Amino acid sequence: MAILIKDCTAITMGDPFVRRGVSIAIADGKITKISENPQDLAGQRFETIIDGKDKLALPGFVNAHTHLAMVLLRGYSDDRNLQAWLEQDIWPAERKLTEEDVYWAALMGIAEMIRSGTTAFSDMYFFMDAVAQAVKESGMRALLSYGIIAPQPGEKAQRELSITEKFLKDWHNTADGRIRVAVGPHAPYTCCDAVWQDATALAMQYNTLIHTHLQETRTEVNDSFKQYQKSPTERLASLGVFQAKTVVAHGVHLSDWDVKILAERGVGLAHCPTSNLKLGSGIAPVKRYKELGVCVGIGTDGAASNNNLDMLEELRLAALLAKRDDPTALPAAEALQMATRLGAQILGLEGVGYLAEGAQADIILVETQGAHWQPGYNPVSDLVYAAQASDVTTVIIAGQIVMKDREILTFDEERTKEKVRVLSKKYFH
Amino acid sequence: MAILIKDCTAITMGDPFVRRGVSIAIADGKITKISENPQDLAGQRFETIIDGKDKLALPGFVNAHTHLAMVLLRGYSDDRNLQAWLEQDIWPAERKLTEEDVYWAALMGIAEMIRSGTTAFSDMYFFMDAVAQAVKESGMRALLSYGIIAPQPGEKAQRELSITEKFLKDWHNTADGRIRVAVGPHAPYTCCDAVWQDATALAMQYNTLIHTHLQETRTEVNDSFKQYQKSPTERLASLGVFQAKTVVAHGVHLSDWDVKILAERGVGLAHCPTSNLKLGSGIAPVKRYKELGVCVGIGTDGAASNNNLDMLEELRLAALLAKRDDPTALPAAEALQMATRLGAQILGLEGVGYLAEGAQADIILVETQGAHWQPGYNPVSDLVYAAQASDVTTVIIAGQIVMKDREILTFDEERTKEKVRVLSKKYFH
Repeated sequence: MAILIKDCTAITMGDPFVRRGVSIAIADGKITKISENPQDLAGQRFETIIDGKDKLALPGFVNAHTHLAMVLLRGYSDDRNLQAWLEQDIWPAERKLTEEDVYWAALMGIAEMIRSGTTAFSDMYFFMDAVAQAVKESGMRALLSYGIIAPQPGEKAQRELSITEKFLKDWHNTADGRIRVAVGPHAPYTCCDAVWQDATALAMQYNTLIHTHLQETRTEVNDSFKQYQKSPTERLASLGVFQAKTVVAHGVHLSDWDVKILAERGVGLAHCPTSNLKLGSGIAPVKRYKELGVCVGIGTDGAASNNNLDMLEELRLAALLAKRDDPTALPAAEALQMATRLGAQILGLEGVGYLAEGAQADIILVETQGAHWQPGYNPVSDLVYAAQASDVTTVIIAGQIVMKDREILTFDEERTKEKVRVLSKKYFH
Repeated sequence: MAILIKDCTAITMGDPFVRRGVSIAIADGKITKISENPQDLAGQRFETIIDGKDKLALPGFVNAHTHLAMVLLRGYSDDRNLQAWLEQDIWPAERKLTEEDVYWAALMGIAEMIRSGTTAFSDMYFFMDAVAQAVKESGMRALLSYGIIAPQPGEKAQRELSITEKFLKDWHNTADGRIRVAVGPHAPYTCCDAVWQDATALAMQYNTLIHTHLQETRTEVNDSFKQYQKSPTERLASLGVFQAKTVVAHGVHLSDWDVKILAERGVGLAHCPTSNLKLGSGIAPVKRYKELGVCVGIGTDGAASNNNLDMLEELRLAALLAKRDDPTALPAAEALQMATRLGAQILGLEGVGYLAEGAQADIILVETQGAHWQPGYNPVSDLVYAAQASDVTTVIIAGQIVMKDREILTFDEERTKEKVRVLSKKYFH
């Protein structure tokens, strides 16, 4: 389908960063033209023309780390110590989850992400066929991974790897390329050395990524030194894991030595500031990481520890936290790039996260007429520091309009809410 | 006018904290009844009945510190060092401000605050007659103060105090009590000892508050020790300032000794976490302050350093920051109270910030049906950690409906936007 977005202000994430009064032409899932000159598009036919007046067009946000189905546990448990939260609340609840729960929760989370302008995400959970099905139906773009938990070698470990390989075979590069599958050893402390090596081999065999959690808490780092005489990063490096393209979530407690390893091996980092604060893990010094050469994206983490999937809120928090002792750190444009272009880069999503001819048509339109946007000197500043998720009006993914004027077109959002409410009843306490 | 809010979930800020299926009756600006039993309201007549189904009713937010007219400078300058930001951008721009600019910017800021559920605010700026006029017309509630800047005694200092006294005479306790005036020496470093003493006398004479900035930056504290051999808090205490009820903004860099002084003298603190991060001032350890007995409210500060006036975002940030090394710190209900009941308390607004019979009818209704509210286990958690400003649908202040179904009723919001855009043209650079 050919789509024209007429007369908008585009934030390209390239150079020039902001282009005013441009029209954007889309065909076959790609951006075919961006131009200030209406003549450039004369004679072309478009099935849909979208008025971009008073709107920003920008690449959709890339949520670089989440556990989508945890939407079903939003608000289920908060304000507790990490161990109590996990052991007494979250893990027992997760044991009750069914494949049906995960499907509907994933679809609910996709609705929330679309509404807040996210067009691609990286997920790690279980019952991943259900998540993939929701991604396929909704028109979303995703990098999906089954979370492998295998502290010892043996039968359980082999089963986890088999589930991963089956998931790769069934879903990698499906839905016209919108779905990619990564190999997801959950964390250094939940997977033994042998599993790390097998997972790496699997990722390299399928030419895909490793997605894991890394050094989220100080305890994790201390335990690793006790058990392995290495930091988790050093351990993974010594196991050869970073031969595969790797993306790690959190990285709150990394030494400069760890960071240099990540930078040298091209490991991407998904910064999850809300979750890191809410669970008491701390504040990842991402300005330092970027200076040392690590590519940093932004993720919301799951809705049980955030408690929303709002990337605009997340990138704002990232920008603000980085400034706590230096107001020049992480300027607005840089935070915005972390939430788009750089996020896509660490997830290996080519052509995603920027507006240019030939790039993927993953585009959001943002209304700029609300009270909180006035008077409107600087669209980048207003977007990063003042905007709300609800300012997103229209969302296009791979050239398909998935939300138009705040109405989701690809699935029944109201039915999804009803389903989620019914399915959540077993967790009410 | 008598109003009935039917069948809502009320977050009272009292005990019980949450009441489901209640109706709230309002007459003569006050809450006259809150009841689970429809019989309790039988026979009463209401001019307006509001359906509260699927909505939360709670006291409106109290923005404990802002500079409202700085809305006109939103996005004008960001990501710069504090001195460059102030000296090269903000102060030169402020010198161009006219009384007309301040009036329209204040009205614009009020629209934004109403839309995000704020029903009372504390302001410090200049051309305060214009701000008071905007408050009067819009139906808002406010504690207003003219910002006194007088580093030396003398004619300028006397003029600043005269402006303050005239403002007190003209506006204190006007607009049916919605407008209160405080005495506003800008900061310890911008006012000399004599002015602090005169300002305190004036506040006590008019039985009102002192509103100031205190220990926002480390530099301010160091400079004070150099010049006075005292911290700013110690200096104000020794000058007798805290004989008047006092509210201070920021307090990022307070020693335990300072905090004990503030606690003993009943000085309230307006915590402005976004502005403190964005300007690189740091993170105020409010959990510690509360433990030491200081009453803490929450403020957005001005839109030039935030860049919005969204109290929901602000209270969430306060809750998250407090948890950075302890996930049990500042639980959701406590953060919510800081943004309502405790904010009203430090501003001396009696009957404000909670829902109870006899309290002021400053009430907001919040829609809970959005994707980001599902599945809805816990309305307090969902409101604090997941909600958006745009979920606020209806706002009542002093018994008057100022916004209904997201439409502002008391003034022309579109005209205000147009005015602000035109007036802002002289600042475009």
